[in-house]
Amino acid sequence: MQHKESIDGTAIVYCQGMFNTPEGKTSHGLVRFTERYNVVGIIDERYAGKDAGEVLDNKPNGIKIFKDFGTAYSELSKDGVAVKNFVVGLAPDGGRLPQSAKQEIAAALQAGLNVDSGLHDFLTNDKELVKLAEKHNCRIRDVRKTPDRDKLHFFTGEIEKVDCLKLAVLGSDSAIGKRTTAWLVVHGFKKEGYKAEMIGTGQTGWMQGAKYSMIMDSCINDFVSGEIEHAVVSAWKEADPDVVVIEGQGSLMNPAYPGGFEILAAGRPDFVILQHAPTRLEYDGFPGYKLHPLHEQINAIKVISGKEVIAVTLNHEGLKPEEIEPACKKITAETGLPCFDVLAHGADDLIEILKEKIRK
Amino acid sequence: MQHKESIDGTAIVYCQGMFNTPEGKTSHGLVRFTERYNVVGIIDERYAGKDAGEVLDNKPNGIKIFKDFGTAYSELSKDGVAVKNFVVGLAPDGGRLPQSAKQEIAAALQAGLNVDSGLHDFLTNDKELVKLAEKHNCRIRDVRKTPDRDKLHFFTGEIEKVDCLKLAVLGSDSAIGKRTTAWLVVHGFKKEGYKAEMIGTGQTGWMQGAKYSMIMDSCINDFVSGEIEHAVVSAWKEADPDVVVIEGQGSLMNPAYPGGFEILAAGRPDFVILQHAPTRLEYDGFPGYKLHPLHEQINAIKVISGKEVIAVTLNHEGLKPEEIEPACKKITAETGLPCFDVLAHGADDLIEILKEKIRK
Repeated sequence: MQHKESIDGTAIVYCQGMFNTPEGKTSHGLVRFTERYNVVGIIDERYAGKDAGEVLDNKPNGIKIFKDFGTAYSELSKDGVAVKNFVVGLAPDGGRLPQSAKQEIAAALQAGLNVDSGLHDFLTNDKELVKLAEKHNCRIRDVRKTPDRDKLHFFTGEIEKVDCLKLAVLGSDSAIGKRTTAWLVVHGFKKEGYKAEMIGTGQTGWMQGAKYSMIMDSCINDFVSGEIEHAVVSAWKEADPDVVVIEGQGSLMNPAYPGGFEILAAGRPDFVILQHAPTRLEYDGFPGYKLHPLHEQINAIKVISGKEVIAVTLNHEGLKPEEIEPACKKITAETGLPCFDVLAHGADDLIEILKEKIRK
Repeated sequence: MQHKESIDGTAIVYCQGMFNTPEGKTSHGLVRFTERYNVVGIIDERYAGKDAGEVLDNKPNGIKIFKDFGTAYSELSKDGVAVKNFVVGLAPDGGRLPQSAKQEIAAALQAGLNVDSGLHDFLTNDKELVKLAEKHNCRIRDVRKTPDRDKLHFFTGEIEKVDCLKLAVLGSDSAIGKRTTAWLVVHGFKKEGYKAEMIGTGQTGWMQGAKYSMIMDSCINDFVSGEIEHAVVSAWKEADPDVVVIEGQGSLMNPAYPGGFEILAAGRPDFVILQHAPTRLEYDGFPGYKLHPLHEQINAIKVISGKEVIAVTLNHEGLKPEEIEPACKKITAETGLPCFDVLAHGADDLIEILKEKIRK
């Protein structure tokens, strides 16, 4: 059982039938790391009674898996755990809400829990659930829901005042590990005694506790730049950090979803860290579309924004452990840039380079 | 009085107190050119009785200006003109709706007119106006309103099937004349007997009658690529054009609002036409931000998308008539690309080059 500080407190994560599958990825992220919740249980009857960390990574972490919400809630209550949140941790194809899930959500609301969901199907559009939430004085948050215009910010130029180190973690493709690397960099700086803030730009980053964040893919296009600026400026004003690390989205040269340009333009990073998977030959989800060579992507960042890539971070998918170090050396030889596998070996060596750029 | 074919029929354009001012620019666009409406009147008491074309461009065009809706409607009815639409042609700073305007909109709805508005203040959020529209069986369209997700399209790759010539008109800055040039190219092709379709990407393009369009700045970010693809594919399937011309938005290297990347990625243009104003030294709305040199911007398009700029179109702001030709020659010398002022001299010479790329 975890016992730690968190933004929103204890949470049960609902992942019925999908834990330890690709459609359970939101739950996996939360089982592995989140500062937003103190995850005290997972729901998936297929693994009921097992330890979530053990099932996922063969590393027990004290998060128990239950067969349904009723069981989870009563057993945790018996253990003296007051559960505050019910998080829908499913990411089914199409993002639609299964009927069975709706009944469990209703049960959670009746028990007085707040509900967070990252589904495309918005719970706040469901009259029954909204009525239940009002009746039991609970909060429902659809993380993916596009905020109303009056809650969004236009770009102001205030970013120019931000005088702490600004880093952006971009990627040579989507789904390549940008967010995980950004967190490792933030935690690496903290370990060294610096004040570091993660600027989240996606729903999972938000669910993992990026306090200063925006959700790019669900934002109205006209406000994307302003929301990125607002997140960075807010972090700078409120947390007085030594460094902010902006999570990238998509990839610049993606054949359909070019991303990261607003991060470069409105986030004004001092340096870019570029996440890359040397074994990936085609763009994720676009078979036949050859991934642009790393040196071309580094050049594109420079040409389009004038920003320098300071280091490459390696995604070791498809590599044996003994192949990681040679792969990093190869990238360094090709690009003249230091390359680190921060997931396999930690971020210490990368932080050594980055901390020289801290202004204070 | 105009008498012409249009998509939505006769329209009175409301521009009270703002005609012939920057805040009346939507009205001006509609007075000068639209295929969506047959504009039969403008409302602005300051110019009541005058000819809108005369006031705006010293070219009478038969569009009369009236002091209010009541007068316009009754006088036009007397002339046997059945008015179908009431278009809010104001673009006040902040986009808010003046109270006086609301009363006129109500009067139009009571008279059975459909209402279109490009304001940030959505008329469809006004219960009274919505009730009135229902009662009188009229349609209210907020052009700027973000469409619901279930009306939006994700990128599918179907764009690869589109075998007609695809052109994109991008710009070296925002507010530089991309849309006007795109229309001139479309009409230039039509004059030569080709089937050409404008792919609109902004609200004014839509109001001017771009049948196949999306409104980028109000679109949910995740769907921008898919909506561009959907507009191009729909035009290709339904209109079987020889050429489609995609209206650009923003500019690639804009300091805050980088734009056009989804057009390059998802629209897959065969060639780019780049609109440029040689006298413009700083980015529109960003004093102190030097405009990137034309050759750098042409290179950025090539680097990021692999697309070639086929010609530069000149925005002659700040140039005397006799300075236009030398300015075009200078750009050709710098870039090796042909350069035309299609607004001053027409699109014929540009079409001569472009029509060689037609596939049929």
